[in-house]
Amino acid sequence: MGEIKKRMKDRLDAFSDAIIAIIITVMVLELPIEKIGGSVDYLVLFRAIGIYAVSFCFVGNLWYQHAQVFNDTERVANKTVVMDLIFLFFMSLVPTFTKLMTDDTSKITVMLYGTLSLILLVVFRIIVSQIAEVKYSKHSKQHEVFNYIFARNFNYSIAAYVILIVLAFFFPRIALVLFIIIPIWSFVENSHEHGTL
Amino acid sequence: MGEIKKRMKDRLDAFSDAIIAIIITVMVLELPIEKIGGSVDYLVLFRAIGIYAVSFCFVGNLWYQHAQVFNDTERVANKTVVMDLIFLFFMSLVPTFTKLMTDDTSKITVMLYGTLSLILLVVFRIIVSQIAEVKYSKHSKQHEVFNYIFARNFNYSIAAYVILIVLAFFFPRIALVLFIIIPIWSFVENSHEHGTL
Amino acid sequence: MGEIKKRMKDRLDAFSDAIIAIIITVMVLELPIEKIGGSVDYLVLFRAIGIYAVSFCFVGNLWYQHAQVFNDTERVANKTVVMDLIFLFFMSLVPTFTKLMTDDTSKITVMLYGTLSLILLVVFRIIVSQIAEVKYSKHSKQHEVFNYIFARNFNYSIAAYVILIVLAFFFPRIALVLFIIIPIWSFVENSHEHGTL
Amino acid sequence: MGEIKKRMKDRLDAFSDAIIAIIITVMVLELPIEKIGGSVDYLVLFRAIGIYAVSFCFVGNLWYQHAQVFNDTERVANKTVVMDLIFLFFMSLVPTFTKLMTDDTSKITVMLYGTLSLILLVVFRIIVSQIAEVKYSKHSKQHEVFNYIFARNFNYSIAAYVILIVLAFFFPRIALVLFIIIPIWSFVENSHEHGTL
Repeated sequence: MGEIKKRMKDRLDAFSDAIIAIIITVMVLELPIEKIGGSVDYLVLFRAIGIYAVSFCFVGNLWYQHAQVFNDTERVANKTVVMDLIFLFFMSLVPTFTKLMTDDTSKITVMLYGTLSLILLVVFRIIVSQIAEVKYSKHSKQHEVFNYIFARNFNYSIAAYVILIVLAFFFPRIALVLFIIIPIWSFVENSHEHGTL
Repeated sequence: MGEIKKRMKDRLDAFSDAIIAIIITVMVLELPIEKIGGSVDYLVLFRAIGIYAVSFCFVGNLWYQHAQVFNDTERVANKTVVMDLIFLFFMSLVPTFTKLMTDDTSKITVMLYGTLSLILLVVFRIIVSQIAEVKYSKHSKQHEVFNYIFARNFNYSIAAYVILIVLAFFFPRIALVLFIIIPIWSFVENSHEHGTL
Repeated sequence: MGEIKKRMKDRLDAFSDAIIAIIITVMVLELPIEKIGGSVDYLVLFRAIGIYAVSFCFVGNLWYQHAQVFNDTERVANKTVVMDLIFLFFMSLVPTFTKLMTDDTSKITVMLYGTLSLILLVVFRIIVSQIAEVKYSKHSKQHEVFNYIFARNFNYSIAAYVILIVLAFFFPRIALVLFIIIPIWSFVENSHEHGTL
Repeated sequence: MGEIKKRMKDRLDAFSDAIIAIIITVMVLELPIEKIGGSVDYLVLFRAIGIYAVSFCFVGNLWYQHAQVFNDTERVANKTVVMDLIFLFFMSLVPTFTKLMTDDTSKITVMLYGTLSLILLVVFRIIVSQIAEVKYSKHSKQHEVFNYIFARNFNYSIAAYVILIVLAFFFPRIALVLFIIIPIWSFVENSHEHGTL
């Protein structure tokens, strides 16, 4: 039973990695290099590459955090498999919503992007809780890890996204800039070594 | 020989996971975000996301059950490799047939979708039998497992799909609703822990 | 050194499986379900699914034989890595050339398809020789395996493809039918257990 | 901690392989086989296959060198994970920039391609340094390996690319030919066994 559980976890990892690899490269399939009137529109091309870079950082960031959480455990509960697939579903919408927001920056598109980010955060938080549940039997240890690694960051992040979604209603362009900076900043942040983790 | 057999099984797993990862995300490549007359048609977009979600649950569900069955064994017969590729072929038609059924709900499209579901069930059942054959030499044990895990569910499922296909002939829209609910319900069901498995 | 060689082999396996998974599903991305004049053209759709099935069998077959050959060894020479990538390059042309041949059956398209099949056979044969070289130091054993498993089949296959390419020049439609039957037949053949292998 | 680090490295390998598999096959999705005026334009098709072959060699080459470097270590620093994703991002632009350069050979497109190649080399060099840092504590050993395997080749390569970019400004077509030959030559070069590595 434990062995089969472990295998399911390994396959979930492989399946997730393959899906995220597709999600992260989806945009490259659509880079606009059609010639318009004899020559390529470089402004349009580099703008598309910029949007792709934003989406790449966001998805890359999610992959990294996802991998870190799942590397920390050897088994997953059935409900975590289902929750992970739900997480992957919403993650797969990131390129589309990023493109939507940057192509047509408006109240609606920026708030949609913010809502998607919020859903991803919440689903991810549920996954982290479920994995911690499987791993730690003692309440104290579980909470300690939780407080240290996740709860702190997550609560701040959720609050930040809610504020940004409200901000997007009034100032969509300012929210857009912040929504673009956050994943890039977070992506670069991952390069630091966390002593205790 | 046993070692080579095991490697083939591991590669079949990796190959299946990669193929299913492509199948499950195929629809995200085609989400309609082209601007029509200055702004995106959100109704069309969210309808497409909804259809994608249905296909995602169906394929996610198949992946899960597929993984569970293959995690239960360490070797597969050659005929199971071939049968598994046939299973993947039909699985790869799920996004297209889901889109067909929901875009143009008619007697024909709903029955086609039902027939594809039925084929997948039957092929999967054959795979399960073949794996059980390799694993259990004693007839009693094999049958016990079969009765407990699969035979019960499968026979009900096959009967249900046949009834739904007939229903689709007379009331395509009602069958459509049921065809949409089944994989979602089955997907969520997977989150429960099965004590004995 | 041996350990690093083994890792390269494992990564080549994973990389090959991912590439072949993309090749085998490429056609599903393009199944024609656009409505023409109010309803889907089922003849066109099922014809496309049929062509996809032919390509699926051909690529599935290549994957299976490829996996069997590589499962038989733990290390690969650098030249085999390069040769395997060349093999994957030509394999990735299979869906396009299958579609070309079936969409527009003519002397040229059928002969092109035949030539691609022949190139794949020859490259595969080189890979098999290289792997056997690494594995067997003694000449006798190597030859014995070669004669038993590969040489026999390959020489027949190469002769058959050359004849078919010539046939395609005079009777493209007959060659087409044979080119379609061969991979399907070969695919189904894989389901048998080979006692000695 | 070491175990988790190792798992992250294994997942980074799997994730990289899946992404590179998509990048290397992206072009095959767009091979032009639409009939224009009754029959396929073979000149256009084989030109597209040729461009695809160039991109395939370039990406295949990067995969091979990438795999060799990562196979040489069991753990990677967090910053290497981030740097590797940046490497993959730029690698994913290779097919687009190859197509751009060959479709519309001009000062700009050839210099863009050269710049992309240069960025890839520099990022790769940083990754190699980071991996060597983790692996070798003693300065002498690290430097010895560096001097032998990488520094020599890299410095030549970087100088060569800078010269080629300048050349592209004056003679784009000559630079194009060289840019096409380099990855193919380098790809074939990989087939040699390096005694000491």
